[in-house]
Formats: sequence, structure tokens, C-alpha cells
Amino acid sequence: MVNSYAIEHEHIKIHGRTSSERNPLTLFWTGSGIELNATGSELLLEVESDYEQYEQWISIWINGAEVSRLMLEKGRRWITLFRGMNAGKVKHVRVMKEVQAMSGDERSLLQLHALQGDGKLLPVPSKRYRLEFIGDSITSGEGAIGAREEEDWLPMFFSASHNYTKLTADLVDADYRVLSQSGWGVLTSWDNNPNHALPLYYEQVCGLLSGARNEALGANQPNDFASWQPDAVIINLGTNDNSAFYQPPWRDEHTGVQYKQRLLDNSSYHPEDIAAFEAAAVAFLHKLRACNKHAQLLWAYGMLGIPMLPAIHRAVEAYKAESGDEKVSVFQLPIMTEATVGARSHPGQLAHVKAAEELAGYLATLLLDR
Amino acid sequence: MVNSYAIEHEHIKIHGRTSSERNPLTLFWTGSGIELNATGSELLLEVESDYEQYEQWISIWINGAEVSRLMLEKGRRWITLFRGMNAGKVKHVRVMKEVQAMSGDERSLLQLHALQGDGKLLPVPSKRYRLEFIGDSITSGEGAIGAREEEDWLPMFFSASHNYTKLTADLVDADYRVLSQSGWGVLTSWDNNPNHALPLYYEQVCGLLSGARNEALGANQPNDFASWQPDAVIINLGTNDNSAFYQPPWRDEHTGVQYKQRLLDNSSYHPEDIAAFEAAAVAFLHKLRACNKHAQLLWAYGMLGIPMLPAIHRAVEAYKAESGDEKVSVFQLPIMTEATVGARSHPGQLAHVKAAEELAGYLATLLLDR
Amino acid sequence: MVNSYAIEHEHIKIHGRTSSERNPLTLFWTGSGIELNATGSELLLEVESDYEQYEQWISIWINGAEVSRLMLEKGRRWITLFRGMNAGKVKHVRVMKEVQAMSGDERSLLQLHALQGDGKLLPVPSKRYRLEFIGDSITSGEGAIGAREEEDWLPMFFSASHNYTKLTADLVDADYRVLSQSGWGVLTSWDNNPNHALPLYYEQVCGLLSGARNEALGANQPNDFASWQPDAVIINLGTNDNSAFYQPPWRDEHTGVQYKQRLLDNSSYHPEDIAAFEAAAVAFLHKLRACNKHAQLLWAYGMLGIPMLPAIHRAVEAYKAESGDEKVSVFQLPIMTEATVGARSHPGQLAHVKAAEELAGYLATLLLDR
Amino acid sequence: MVNSYAIEHEHIKIHGRTSSERNPLTLFWTGSGIELNATGSELLLEVESDYEQYEQWISIWINGAEVSRLMLEKGRRWITLFRGMNAGKVKHVRVMKEVQAMSGDERSLLQLHALQGDGKLLPVPSKRYRLEFIGDSITSGEGAIGAREEEDWLPMFFSASHNYTKLTADLVDADYRVLSQSGWGVLTSWDNNPNHALPLYYEQVCGLLSGARNEALGANQPNDFASWQPDAVIINLGTNDNSAFYQPPWRDEHTGVQYKQRLLDNSSYHPEDIAAFEAAAVAFLHKLRACNKHAQLLWAYGMLGIPMLPAIHRAVEAYKAESGDEKVSVFQLPIMTEATVGARSHPGQLAHVKAAEELAGYLATLLLDR
Repeated sequence: MVNSYAIEHEHIKIHGRTSSERNPLTLFWTGSGIELNATGSELLLEVESDYEQYEQWISIWINGAEVSRLMLEKGRRWITLFRGMNAGKVKHVRVMKEVQAMSGDERSLLQLHALQGDGKLLPVPSKRYRLEFIGDSITSGEGAIGAREEEDWLPMFFSASHNYTKLTADLVDADYRVLSQSGWGVLTSWDNNPNHALPLYYEQVCGLLSGARNEALGANQPNDFASWQPDAVIINLGTNDNSAFYQPPWRDEHTGVQYKQRLLDNSSYHPEDIAAFEAAAVAFLHKLRACNKHAQLLWAYGMLGIPMLPAIHRAVEAYKAESGDEKVSVFQLPIMTEATVGARSHPGQLAHVKAAEELAGYLATLLLDR
Repeated sequence: MVNSYAIEHEHIKIHGRTSSERNPLTLFWTGSGIELNATGSELLLEVESDYEQYEQWISIWINGAEVSRLMLEKGRRWITLFRGMNAGKVKHVRVMKEVQAMSGDERSLLQLHALQGDGKLLPVPSKRYRLEFIGDSITSGEGAIGAREEEDWLPMFFSASHNYTKLTADLVDADYRVLSQSGWGVLTSWDNNPNHALPLYYEQVCGLLSGARNEALGANQPNDFASWQPDAVIINLGTNDNSAFYQPPWRDEHTGVQYKQRLLDNSSYHPEDIAAFEAAAVAFLHKLRACNKHAQLLWAYGMLGIPMLPAIHRAVEAYKAESGDEKVSVFQLPIMTEATVGARSHPGQLAHVKAAEELAGYLATLLLDR
Repeated sequence: MVNSYAIEHEHIKIHGRTSSERNPLTLFWTGSGIELNATGSELLLEVESDYEQYEQWISIWINGAEVSRLMLEKGRRWITLFRGMNAGKVKHVRVMKEVQAMSGDERSLLQLHALQGDGKLLPVPSKRYRLEFIGDSITSGEGAIGAREEEDWLPMFFSASHNYTKLTADLVDADYRVLSQSGWGVLTSWDNNPNHALPLYYEQVCGLLSGARNEALGANQPNDFASWQPDAVIINLGTNDNSAFYQPPWRDEHTGVQYKQRLLDNSSYHPEDIAAFEAAAVAFLHKLRACNKHAQLLWAYGMLGIPMLPAIHRAVEAYKAESGDEKVSVFQLPIMTEATVGARSHPGQLAHVKAAEELAGYLATLLLDR
Repeated sequence: MVNSYAIEHEHIKIHGRTSSERNPLTLFWTGSGIELNATGSELLLEVESDYEQYEQWISIWINGAEVSRLMLEKGRRWITLFRGMNAGKVKHVRVMKEVQAMSGDERSLLQLHALQGDGKLLPVPSKRYRLEFIGDSITSGEGAIGAREEEDWLPMFFSASHNYTKLTADLVDADYRVLSQSGWGVLTSWDNNPNHALPLYYEQVCGLLSGARNEALGANQPNDFASWQPDAVIINLGTNDNSAFYQPPWRDEHTGVQYKQRLLDNSSYHPEDIAAFEAAAVAFLHKLRACNKHAQLLWAYGMLGIPMLPAIHRAVEAYKAESGDEKVSVFQLPIMTEATVGARSHPGQLAHVKAAEELAGYLATLLLDR
């Protein structure tokens, strides 16, 4: 006998920041998806996908092992998660969005409609902690999959599964959410665009997406922070803010205003501009604390070098002085090496494994100290 | 401008033993598939798949990195191999059948019809060597993917990509073919069935498949050995022949005859029955030599223990004495341990990596000695 | 024919900060010793050693491999470095002091008198860089050798060879010197003793040693900085300064004054006391720059946790602001884990290997940037 | 209060085949030595050493960690095993002869006279199994220490501690003995000398040593097999028997007889000569069984290649057929690779680690089956 299950089923655990709508469930951010325990011999998932430029990818995990990773075609269809299995046994299933929210493609869409199977759904136990990661391409897992020689910016070379966010969460036994966007920073993006700053959209469900459909899907709605409070927020930003110092100005076409993080003649950061970065970082920490009352705020930085580390420390110090907040710290992640580079000159799987091991070790003590 | 390419295109390299038919190309054995170099931004492959019980899985490799692995639905459809890539660059693409020939499912089918893309196909350089692997579940990569706790016998838990055959071939720079079947042996299968012996079907394209459709597709035709002569044939059989000694008899329903490899009271192999195994092994070596004129014949055995090693050595010795053939040897593979076990109590990826490293080291010297 | 060589021989390269006296050569600091290239079948070294409580250990390296490590008895004797070797070949030999300068034992002494052999000495090529490490027990390699269960504070459990200093120097191709003392810090030692601070003795040859003999040997003389200028000074201090906050006061028996780094009621550092640490760190950086004109100053910290990281960053920032010096930075070392702990709850060899890999990667870019 | 302990003390466990004399104890074979548990702050060992050409080396292990390895000078002296330790705690101590019995140096000698310390000796618990290893240079740990470039045949480059014998024994929790000699084989040595065959001396304490002193020390006495019966005898021989086929004849100067293992024109072994090897192997197995009633006999071979594997299998088969003995088997060890080579083109530490892991895995099942 085949049963249908709505995504809002009490035993389907939903990962990733999204709207309150469940019929269908929209998966905005990388690493979002569903998790469930099911009996039965077979289970299917109805997905819907769209794009203009950047297609969707998902991975499928059975009992903790990744068994499939696939590109989704446009449209709505049923995907088999498993079939032919021992019906009586409970299977743990996870379906994960492998690619980041695509701010560059208004039509980019991934939705889950329903499940169908011949078994029952059972409760998914809670993990010990909740983590939220905020980052750029590193946190989006750009280059964590694919050949080292790759240079194209493609969904195919993004992996939510094999980057440090999932690995760290697994190591400390945590559920987690990711908010990330390649090329973006705290104050500006890598090319000096001040609109491509994660803090601007932190309080919305997924405000960096544009277009009427995303609007209708609730991307711009205020996020319901009360419903999911993390134990730690890991901020892995600054890499693109550094790049901005070495890039040409960005010109706002509407206002004609140019934006540029400047270097001094001696190649060091212009004091005013690095101060602007620090001010943006301080402001972001205040915003994060306002939204996440009891979380450890951890700025974890360094996989692609550490030039912004002093500025990040100064910002954290300034925030602590202003707020009296002691639950904030800085952690340096291991720098990618020749041996650990992945696709697109980004951290490969080995780099992510190393980062996760170091970060998880530190997080574990931080979380125990609560 | 979109071009269509037939599978028989001169620059599409075909892997795996198959018939001479190319329109469509039938992929019978695990590890079979196509390999090509293409320009263009996009490439699609038209696949056709069918099954009653055991579905098909494929993996997709871009520039040497696995980017996708997916279950195929019944029917014929276009699959995107890549899209959005730099059109001018040459992309190396490989599509691989992940599951073994399914002797237990007459309807099991995987065919490739055509390719479509906006670029050109370029020649695929030859590898240094050609290898042929003959084996059982180990060689089919059963359990090389999936959680350790898995016990179901499912296509999902087979991997052509992550088993020692591909890893070994990559290490010695070889094209390769695999003939394998879970549970089968040299003389009988694990359950004493004398019809489930690889040697019986060695000279056919894929004679262990049954049914009218496979017949029509050429599975039972004589293989064209002249068209592809390996430098080495690696025989990884014996594990199931050992199991047969510990299993109940198998009864031929047509003849009523019972088959059983017997143990003596002291738990050692019955001399007549182990002799029958050895005779079968000797005969198989003669057959292999008849079909493969210049190949090194290498019996590589041991990943699940070595109880048959003495019998294998005796068989190889007997064959050498009978034939005068010196190009035959025995190599012991590393035994799977607690640390390297995969799904279904079979070798996991780590066990396959270890086996490949040892085997490739030995093969390299063997092939250089030619 | 046997030759004798004085230690001042032009082809004997001397490692480690010491006085100008060469007859004999006194080895004060861990990692100090000699390096040479010799022909001949045999080479002996005359060593002299003394102690009241803490005996000396050395290691012997032939062609880059450690072949011996031994405790030295009191007195003067000849030690065979190699014998029976092919006389015509050049052997690279290194003898290294394995234990730190022992501030707790006035009689602790290690001297090299002469070499004797049947070959010639040949020039030792220069390494690419020069590094100086300043640290505590971690930098002294305490616990880098010995069983995990060890708790005794003993010379036997110190290793100059297997700690991150030698490993890092080897990775970046550098000669190096180490100034280190277990339990010591920047402002005070782990037990609040303000006399046990490395900066107090930085300008002397080995001023932390006491007693008339050390005085006579030149330990308190000003160091000749002009003779050996490092490309980078790595400061690995702060771990014991943190401990002081959790220990009882230290009382100066002469003055009756008590010293104590205090915690607030909320368990955070008392602002005045952490400020005192920072002031000491700033002053130390000024002193280091005064002595080392062109070196990168790199504060590398974290193997036993990172509680002082914010204070270290603040101190480095303050120093940069005061001095305008840009050649100073902070680098976080990987935290020791359950898997990498060594003897006496200190970093084991694996922890040192990890630290060296990360540190060398960063140093390499820093040194190339010069 | 300082106590003296004779080596025959009930709580001093003696490793290695030796005579019944304990005052002093002569250590003939590599890996032999003493093991004890002691309280007290300090422990000294009186050793005596001599040589004409090949000096002695020992290693010292405290609580399972190697803390020292040193060359011994000629003569008798006290060596400090530990000092300054917590007197109340029990320290586990092991002193191990690092070099093989030196058949090429009549004066080569290592003896232990007595112990002296301020604590007590306590019982040493028994290990689970007893293993005996019989081999050549591989089993002597030749090249397991020292730089890869080394070519001299020297005691310095032998290691009992870091070769597969100790590693395997540790992994299966076994006491063990080693009988080994570089260059020796089953039938002849690498250079066709039939006197340099381990089986000739198996029944004596250490019959391959010559000279009046070794005679007086009991080297030629029959070994007391009843006093120490192993659970498994591992025979790692054949590598030099293979070399003999490629070396010039060896001429017995007394008889004028020449010995030579011959190759056929097609480069394969001459049937008569490989048969002679097999006969010698069969005879050795009979001798081993006569001396070791209940042991598993395991021929473990392959670290430097496997050309003799067929002959070894034939010999084992022949022995089983003649004797009816089922407790005998063949195990192939992993072949040394470019990545694992040590000094003198012999297996390095990594090769020994790999061999030990594979061998221990197999031995564990073999020993459990008893």
C-alpha cells in the first residue's frame, strides 16, 4: 500500500532557513533539505526545479552514506530515494540542496512537494546542538567537488555535502543552517559592490534573491528567529572584503557613485577603508546578537589566507567593548595548501576536512562551556 | 548550433565488453560506458533503461572528477552531462555503468542512444595498457558504497567507480574491462550452483544474462576477442567457491541432481571436491590463454580471506606444467579489516584503495617485464 | 690516520645562541649543537656534561636520519658518531641538544670539546632562511617524546628533534635557534612569578641560567645580535600567562611583595592584569625589533588553546600603531586534540607535525613577501 | 636505599633465545633483551659489550615509549635506564638488542650483568601469545632506520624496534623471539653459500655464531624448546634463495666444490635447483614441527618481491601431503614500494608498519582458530 506524505508531516525534519510555507517547501540556501526515518521498501520524493542559468543539484543520503548526487532538470518530477529495501527496517534518509542560493538567477528554484512510499515515517531525534554558518564561496563549498583544473563558475562544482559546514556539524553532533554567497563579504563583495554584503540580508528569509517569484515565495520576509535559535553562529567572512582592496571601483549605475576599498602606496590597507570594514563587522555582530540571544558568535576565518585577521580581531574587540558581550571569539582556520586545493583554486575536500577537524575541536569546548 | 552524435562516432571511446551494435550501444557489464573529449558549453546523453527488480545506476565524470551518480528511471531520456561551461575548452567526459550485469533480472537494461551538444568531439588518447578483471561481488564493487550497516542486496550499494578495478587501472594507466557477478565462482556459486560459474560464459559477450531481449541484443554471441586483447587478465575468483563448502547442496530442479562441495569431518576440504575446483581453475586458465594470446594471467585473491590460496596455487602450478606457459602468477590481495569494511560486510572504499595500491605495484613490474 | 678537529673549525657549523667561546663550545639552549660534513670511516665527539638534578640528552643524525638519542653521564668522554662507514663518501652529521636550558639546575652543563676522525671536514651549505623561536614548554618539546601516561617533569621527556621548531625549519629550509623555558611567559610564569618571563633575558646569551659557572661561561653576557640576524622571529608565548590567572599568588621572598594575575567574578580576566600582559607583549615586540632589524615578527600561538588570542592581537595592534612596523603578525597554531596529545598532557609528535605544517605554510608566504 | 638485582630475578622477563646462563645473560639475537616493572626513582643496568667490526646497539623503552637508542662502547659499564622519576609509581621498562647476531664478527658480544635501583621489581604479566620469527635482513630490520641514501652495511642501520616483528607482536599482544641473519636463506645465502642457511642452526641456541667465546657462552648448545613453545612460527625466508640464482657460484675452499643455483636460458629457475630449494623448505618445516609441537607454521613472504612464491606454496603443499599437518600456511606480505623504501634499498619503517598490519590481521584469525 502506497502512502503520500506532505512535507509538513510531523516526522519530516526540515533543514535550512525558509519561509513558513510547506506546500511546497522552498529550499533557498545550500545545505537545506529534509531528513526523515522511514520504513517500507520504497520512497519517492516529488521535486520541482527551475532556472535560467544556474541549475539545481541535490544529494541523497541513506543511513548516513551519500548514495547519489544529481543535477535536476527543469520541472516537477518524482525522484526515487530508495527502492527494493527491507521494508521492516528503518531507513534514515537525507536530501540536501547542494548549491547556494543563486542571487544571479531570478528563476533559480528548488521545491519539495511530497513524499510517497509503502512505509511509515518515524520521529527524527534531535541533535545535541544547532549551528548557523554565514559565509562566502568557501562556505558554499565552491570547488569542494570537481577537477583541480576547473575554472568555470558552475553549480556543478558546488558541494554542500563535502564542505566544512556539514563535516563540522557532524563532528559536534549538530543540526545546522548555512547562509552563504560566493564573492560576498561583510562590507562589500570582492569587486567593491556594497550591495553584496551578507549583513544586509541577514534578517530576511533569503533576501539576496530577487524577482517576483522569490518575493512571492517569501524570500524577503523577516526570518522567524524565535523558531530556531542556534547555539553558535560561525561567521566565515572577510576573504572577499580583502579582495576588494585589489579590485577596480564598483560604480552604482543608478546613483553614479563609485565604491572602492583603497590601498596606500605602501600596499597596506587605507586606514579609513579598513575602518569601514571593521565598523561593518561590529554592526553585524550587534545584529547577530540581537537575533540570536544565547549563541556563541565565532568568527572563523583563514582558509584562503589571513590578511584580514587583525581587522577582524579589532572589530570583535570593539564589539565586546561596546556590548559587554563575552560570548564572541575569533578562530583561525587552517590555510589551504597545494596539497588540499580543490576546483577553481578553492579549498578541496581535504582542506574542508582539516578545517572541520580544527573548528569542531574548538567549538566542542566552546559549547561545553555554556 | 546543436549537433547530434551517434555513439559510433569515431571519437567516442567505448568501454566494456559488448556486441558490435552501436545504435544503440548496450552496456552489459559494470564499469562499461563511454569516454570522450568535447568542446562546447553543453552536452547531453540519451540513455534508455529498464528493469523488473534491479535498476540501473550511472556515474558521470568531468575532467577526471566524479560529479554525479544517479539511479536511472525506466524509459528513454536525455541526461545533461554538463552545461554552462567555457565552450572553447576541451572537457574530458566519462559515463560509467555503476552496477553489474544483472543475471537475476531479465529486464535489466542500459543503453546509450546518442549525444547532443554545441561543440565538437576530439580524439581520446590511448592508455598505456589494457586490463581485464574477472570476479565476483568484490570485483562488482558490492558494498564499496553505502553505510556499513546495510544488509540489503541492492544496485544502490554497487560502485564501479570506487572499487579496485578502476583504481588499479588508473594507477597503471590502463583501459579496462570487468566481467563479474556477485556470488559466482570458478566451479560453482556460493550456494553450490554449478551453472553460476564465470568460466561457463567467458567466451560470450555477456552470456550470463538470459531472456529474449538479451539474446536479441547479442549477449550470447561469441565475444570478438581479436578486437580487444588485454595486457593482463586479473582473475579474482575463489571466494564463493570456498563458501560453497559451508552451504547446503544445490539441487538442479530439471535433473534432480544435487551439487555440494563437501568438508571432511576435520573441517578441511574434501579432497575430491577441492580437486574439482582446481580442475575448473586449470581449465579456465587454458580458456583464458586461448582467448588472450599475449596477456599476463594473474590470479589476484584474498580481500575476504585466503582459504583457497593453496588450491589456487596448485591449480596455477598444474596449468603451468601442462601448458609450459610462464605468463601466469598468483598475487595475494590485502585482507579487509575492521577499519576497511564497507556495506554488506564487503570491502569498503579503503579496502579497495589498499588492494589497488598493492595490485598496481605488482602489475607495473609484471607489465614492464613483458 | 686520525685527525683532531677543534670545534672552532671553519667547517663546523654551530647552532644555537651561545657565547663566543669555542674551546669548549657550551650548548645552552635546546636544539643547539653542531652540523658538519665529513669524509672518513669514523668520527668521534668529545662531550662534557654535568648536572645536579636534570641530566643532558643529545640526538645524533646521520645524513638527515636520527640514529641515536641518549642520556649523557656526568663527566667528559668521547662518543662515537659513526664508525665503519665508506671512507670516501661525505657524511652529513648533526648533534643536537635535546633538552632546554635548565634554569632550575645551576650545575646543568653541556659542552663540546673536539672531534676526532680519519677523514676531512667539508663546508656545510647555508640554508635559505634563519628562524628564531621563543617559547615555553611547547617550544621546548616537553612531552613530544614519552608515553602518554607520563606525569614526571623529566629531561627524558623533552625532544628538540621531534617538535615543531625543527620540523618547521626543515619545511622552509632554514637554520634556526630556540630560546625556551617550560612554564615561563611574557609577563610571568604559570605560577605568577614575574622573574620567569622570557623577555627579561632576551638580550643575554642565556641569562635565565644562574650560578657562577654559567656566569663564567658567558650566559649573562649580551648576545651578539649582529652575528646572526633571523628572517623571522616566532614568539610562541602566552600559554603560561593565561595559567597565572588561575593560580595562587607568587610571593617574592625578598620583598614580601605578592604577584597575581586576577580573574573577575564572572571568570573573565581582570582588565588591569590582562592590560599588564599586553603592555609586556608590546614592550617585548619593541625589544625584538631593536635586536632584529629586518625580521618578520610572528606571534604563533594556540597549541594548548587560545584564551589569550584577543590580548595577543591587541598587543600586536598596539605595537604596530606605536611603531609603524608592518612586519609583525599573529598566527594561530592548531589546537592539540585527544588524538595528538603526547606525554605530560603536552603536544605529542603528531601535534607538532600538524603545527609545523600550518606554520611553515604561512611562513613560506611571509618570507617570500620580503 | 639502593638495591642490586641479578638478571635471574624472578620478576625480570627475558626475551630472545639464549642459554640457561643468567650471570651474565648473553643476548644473542636481535629483539632479545629484558622487560620489567620497577618502582623507585632510578634504575641502572650493567651491560658488557665487545666487537671487532660490528658494534652493539640497544634501545630503551619506558612505559611503552622508546626514549633512547644508543651504540655501546666496548667494555662493561652501568647505563641509566631512568632517573628522577616518581618513586612510588611502577615503571615498565624494556631494553632491547637492536642488532642481529653477527655471524661475521666472532668478538661481537652483548651481555647484561645486573640492575641497580632504589625501588622494587614487580611481576610482568604474560602476553596472550608467543611468536617466533625466522628470517633474513628484512626480519633483522636492516634499513628500517637510517637515510634512504645509505649503502654501507652497518649495525647502525639495523632496528629491532621499528621492524615488523615487534610491530606484529604488539598488535596481536604477543611475546616474541627472532632468529634472523642478513643474506641468509633456506638452502643457501644470496651468494650461493650452502652453509649460510638458517635451518642448519635452528636447533641450537645461536649456532651461526663461531669462535671459542660464543662456544663457551653456549651458542652451539641445543636449544631448550620445552621451555618456550610458540603459538606461531613465522618464516620469512626465500628472498636470498632467489638472489642466489642471479649470483656467481660459491666455492667451498676446503673441498673445492662449487655451489650455484642455476637459471635456464629462458631466465626461469632450473628445475633441479628450485626443487632443491623446495626440498630444503619441506625439510625445514618438518624440523620446525618437530621442535614446536602445537605452533601454527606460517610462511610469510614478499616484502622485496614474490618470485619464490610458487616454490614456497609447492613446498608447503608437499610438506602437508607428507605430514598430514594442517597447521601450516602461506601469507604474502605487502611489497615495498618507492614510498616505503628505507635505507640500503630495504624496507623502511612504513613498509614494516604495512607488513605488520596485514600479518597481524591474518595471525589474529589463525590464532583464534586454534
